[in-house]
Amino acid sequence: MQRSHHFPSVWGNEHKPEGWTVELGQEQPLLLDCGTAIGPFTIAYQTYGQLNASRSNAILICHALTGDQFVADPHPITGKDGWWNMLIGPGRVLDTDRFFLICSNVLGGCMGSTGPKEINPATDTPWALSFPIITIADMVRAQAMLLDYLGIWRLFCVIGGSMGAMQVLQWATSYPERVFAAVPIAGSYRHSAQNIAFHEVGRRAIMADPDWCSGHYLRHGKAPHRGLAVARMAAHITYLSEAALHRRFGRTLHNRSQVTYGFDADFQVESYLRYQGSTFVDRFDANSYLYITRAMDYFDLTVEQGGVLANAFRGTKTRFCVVSFTSDWLFPTSESRAIVHALNAVAANVSFVEIETDKGHDAFLLDEPEFHTTLTGFLEGAAAEHRDLLRCRGP
Amino acid sequence: MQRSHHFPSVWGNEHKPEGWTVELGQEQPLLLDCGTAIGPFTIAYQTYGQLNASRSNAILICHALTGDQFVADPHPITGKDGWWNMLIGPGRVLDTDRFFLICSNVLGGCMGSTGPKEINPATDTPWALSFPIITIADMVRAQAMLLDYLGIWRLFCVIGGSMGAMQVLQWATSYPERVFAAVPIAGSYRHSAQNIAFHEVGRRAIMADPDWCSGHYLRHGKAPHRGLAVARMAAHITYLSEAALHRRFGRTLHNRSQVTYGFDADFQVESYLRYQGSTFVDRFDANSYLYITRAMDYFDLTVEQGGVLANAFRGTKTRFCVVSFTSDWLFPTSESRAIVHALNAVAANVSFVEIETDKGHDAFLLDEPEFHTTLTGFLEGAAAEHRDLLRCRGP
Repeated sequence: MQRSHHFPSVWGNEHKPEGWTVELGQEQPLLLDCGTAIGPFTIAYQTYGQLNASRSNAILICHALTGDQFVADPHPITGKDGWWNMLIGPGRVLDTDRFFLICSNVLGGCMGSTGPKEINPATDTPWALSFPIITIADMVRAQAMLLDYLGIWRLFCVIGGSMGAMQVLQWATSYPERVFAAVPIAGSYRHSAQNIAFHEVGRRAIMADPDWCSGHYLRHGKAPHRGLAVARMAAHITYLSEAALHRRFGRTLHNRSQVTYGFDADFQVESYLRYQGSTFVDRFDANSYLYITRAMDYFDLTVEQGGVLANAFRGTKTRFCVVSFTSDWLFPTSESRAIVHALNAVAANVSFVEIETDKGHDAFLLDEPEFHTTLTGFLEGAAAEHRDLLRCRGP
Repeated sequence: MQRSHHFPSVWGNEHKPEGWTVELGQEQPLLLDCGTAIGPFTIAYQTYGQLNASRSNAILICHALTGDQFVADPHPITGKDGWWNMLIGPGRVLDTDRFFLICSNVLGGCMGSTGPKEINPATDTPWALSFPIITIADMVRAQAMLLDYLGIWRLFCVIGGSMGAMQVLQWATSYPERVFAAVPIAGSYRHSAQNIAFHEVGRRAIMADPDWCSGHYLRHGKAPHRGLAVARMAAHITYLSEAALHRRFGRTLHNRSQVTYGFDADFQVESYLRYQGSTFVDRFDANSYLYITRAMDYFDLTVEQGGVLANAFRGTKTRFCVVSFTSDWLFPTSESRAIVHALNAVAANVSFVEIETDKGHDAFLLDEPEFHTTLTGFLEGAAAEHRDLLRCRGP
């Protein structure tokens, strides 16, 4: 069954570097897990490549906590390359000659989708903490509405790392018939106690900043930059491995030959972390950080499955490729293995690849040839099993 | 060679639960690594058991970052048991019938020893950031002056975990002839990039708190409680293991049957962390936290040894027992193993025990029977090789 769509010319859709936005939920609002209905709401998204005539070559890319829809464009604020730039393009892993790639800013985000920094039409002021709590399932519901709008019923593939992997798993659970292939990378089926703990530290750092103003900083022309920077610094450590930090920085001093016996950034690792914190605040909204971390904390695919993860995938026809990285201690391989066990328990079609690397959780964003080869191999294999994509190369 | 001492009656020294203090460096100030001379300065300490006639049964206990001298007394602020209460007493691992135990609050600390919260006699205001940066070696120099004062030339043993282990290794390096036996537990010979990074996050959290007042909060009748609590929360996660957090808390909710879709402490692990942060600020000084974390960051035994750790121990006659814990990711076993390799390279007398536990770094403070058995065995073995202690049991 294909849904109707209002998108005028998906086929001739030219790539738009500044991105697209669409207002959804005008007729039928989105009912969130928390019980609140939201609509209309905006979803900002980016596409690459062309949708084919049978609308069967779409790949949905799900971004991570601080990611956004600018997967392969310069970031509109920082000017930096898109976060998966190296994977996307003609002939690349996510081949724009062959696939139509979509990535939307999550609901609750701060890059154009409706979130706490946007204006609440009911009050004409920023939502701030009056924005309803959203969940990973809510993000996925909003993405499904975007696909309806684009006239895409079934995704060839849904792919993402970290929080993106959570969305991938949620897609495969909520809309199994709309997902031909799924690639959850460096993810988990539920957020662990340690990860909740790290998120809570970040949230407390933001809320401890007086410039947070109980969430109403925009109204006061302020921003909790110090708290958000501390949150980012703490989180950033968890994205790297001890080995990567040792290799990149060790105890090397920063632009000096000896320690200064003070609290300046004597060590390169300090200078690097401070930079990570100070640049992050220019591109990310503090309240979005609160909301999105909370969505991750609440994620637990087993809750509605009587505690049995396998039930989430019972009867699935989706092909899965589960990927983890050896040195990722934020979403360790054991989490991915639990997903694979659950998929095996229901005789699902699943490949599992653990990539040997010392780069930690961030490896999914970095130049990891074995990882990229794995993705290419899986996508080619899945395309070969796909009725439409088998026959035609390119749109 | 025995130094003169001013302590009137060490032999008859009754245990004093509220602790002792002594003013040191009156005649000869302490020259710190940063180049500043400090003196007179106060060291607060605690003793348990009796010094024997030959002054040969002393064990120096070195405390960790947020520890203090109240090893086996109720904490004067929190009223909680001493941090190694279970190890100390007649017939226990650190047998007060046999040994004379000393633990002093480190220089730069906040439990009575001179540190940034004490009054700088030159200005009659709290030192705050005018307090000189101290190093692990400086802490050890101050402890050596305390031992001089107590009339103790040679320690039977110096023992400590975490930052305590750093002091133990510094003792063995700076004063090898004064240390008969040394037990560095869950420590390292140099602070790693990851650990410096976590400390930097804590320091930034404190300094980001406007109530820190550029360090002068005492002068303004304030305290950076929010920043210090965030620092403690982040650090506390690193003291536990992922497995311990999962076992203790998992995703269990806190006094509720379902999530509240908000930013309250829905999860037990959040509630626990918030409690750790909020209670810590009652007993610890924020500037001391800055200074002591900095001392740990600066610790690197190889710097003065041409980068070769083994040189730090060349010719040592000290007996070492190096202890690590399998699930400690803050000071992982690899760090202890590097110490053991260096000791082996100079043919030192060294035992190495890695304790199997899922309790993480904090295991050294917890009820770990195999750990306690290890300590007892090592101390008995060392005493059996010690001329004085072999003959006499008890003072």
